[in-house]
Amino acid sequence: MEHNKRNFSPRPQKPSLPLLIGRKPVMEALANGTAIEKIFLLRTATGEEINTIKQLCRERNIPLSQVPVEKLNNLTKAQHQGVVAYTSLLEYIELQEAISFVVDKGETPLFVLLDGVTDVRNVGAIARSALCCGAQGLILPTSNAASLTEDAIKTSAGALRQIMLCRIPSVAQALDVLKLNGINVLGTNMKGSVPVYEADLTIPSAIVMGAEDTGISKDVIKRADQLIRIPMAKAFDSLNVSVAAGMILYEAAKQRLTQ
Amino acid sequence: MEHNKRNFSPRPQKPSLPLLIGRKPVMEALANGTAIEKIFLLRTATGEEINTIKQLCRERNIPLSQVPVEKLNNLTKAQHQGVVAYTSLLEYIELQEAISFVVDKGETPLFVLLDGVTDVRNVGAIARSALCCGAQGLILPTSNAASLTEDAIKTSAGALRQIMLCRIPSVAQALDVLKLNGINVLGTNMKGSVPVYEADLTIPSAIVMGAEDTGISKDVIKRADQLIRIPMAKAFDSLNVSVAAGMILYEAAKQRLTQ
Repeated sequence: MEHNKRNFSPRPQKPSLPLLIGRKPVMEALANGTAIEKIFLLRTATGEEINTIKQLCRERNIPLSQVPVEKLNNLTKAQHQGVVAYTSLLEYIELQEAISFVVDKGETPLFVLLDGVTDVRNVGAIARSALCCGAQGLILPTSNAASLTEDAIKTSAGALRQIMLCRIPSVAQALDVLKLNGINVLGTNMKGSVPVYEADLTIPSAIVMGAEDTGISKDVIKRADQLIRIPMAKAFDSLNVSVAAGMILYEAAKQRLTQ
Repeated sequence: MEHNKRNFSPRPQKPSLPLLIGRKPVMEALANGTAIEKIFLLRTATGEEINTIKQLCRERNIPLSQVPVEKLNNLTKAQHQGVVAYTSLLEYIELQEAISFVVDKGETPLFVLLDGVTDVRNVGAIARSALCCGAQGLILPTSNAASLTEDAIKTSAGALRQIMLCRIPSVAQALDVLKLNGINVLGTNMKGSVPVYEADLTIPSAIVMGAEDTGISKDVIKRADQLIRIPMAKAFDSLNVSVAAGMILYEAAKQRLTQ
């Protein structure tokens, strides 16, 4: 679904999160399990510590951005040694762990995967609707995603603190995990063949919402079990992504409450 | 429904609309039917022209704000003579005219009345969903409403230019007009007795969405034919007003498409 092209233009991307500056503080944070939102590495940085940081980012699904020195100098005036990290305001959990947690509680999984939704306020609004409608988890890729800043949490009315947050290295890998767990993957697409109200959302489900300009990625179109659409009464542009997510989540809540 | 308390904080209220400054330009605009978004009058201004302006505002449902001189000086550095007007980017139509237009076309009326929704981006997002879901008109009170600025139009992805816009002097009066035309008035309220999917939205309907902090007004609670709620899977705060409106409009579109 191509939503929101002209809507909620992203704010300047300098989230007000606590900074860790320099190799030692970042290494220590990684060692003691501090939740980290994102790491910026100097593009030309090398050495054993840098390799360790890269590896730990991969292992723990921490977004890593390799940047020119100007970007780092822009983040801090302190001596950064080519490494700056934003600590996270929120805790993340492994996708498999989140699914098992839901199943163990005897609940039917309902997850929302954001495939390229980069506006913090859209992420916040979707988290809020997701929680209200009974979704247990929000799945966020490590790249091409919004940082969960104070602003995102505020827009979510705190929902981001109450819903499980799963960071994933790639959307494709997340779809594999979901499918292995018997969760029906529904891609949302303006040209989806199934009107959302004809999809069975009472079974374990993951709803994939696409990027604000380009929609869900080709990978999702190929791998989704179903492509759903929100039927429009009038041919017109398309919906804001957080409104579209709200409509689908409402349909899911309704189906589950009335089944 | 109490939505959106912490969400989408209003931007500074200085809409970038063309200004008319001084008594003569404003009188002329009123005389030749120029669409006017809002008029600011000096609180202490008197005289025949001022009386005429006040009366024309009442007759044409133009929002009129009586303000101290500092407000006017803040709007313009020019000689304002106690009168400043924002011209409108959009055309407004009488509610009765709008209803007749819909009925004459053989369509079933679906209107959205905003009772105190003051954030321009929420109004824009609601207009977008309304148009997508087949609503023909948006009803806006002259007081306690958002000005339809460039920002609102942008957020609506242009929908505000394609949907009928009806300005009303009071919500109570609008409800009377709606009811006289046989339109079912549905107030949205967190404690509404009817889950939205149990309401019949295939009949002529007007959905009332409430203020972001206080919900729909007592007048609406008293006069609505039905009070509807969006069922929540989880007890949590509440939904953003534009998402809540989207869910109800989706339900209406679905009922009308599948009946």
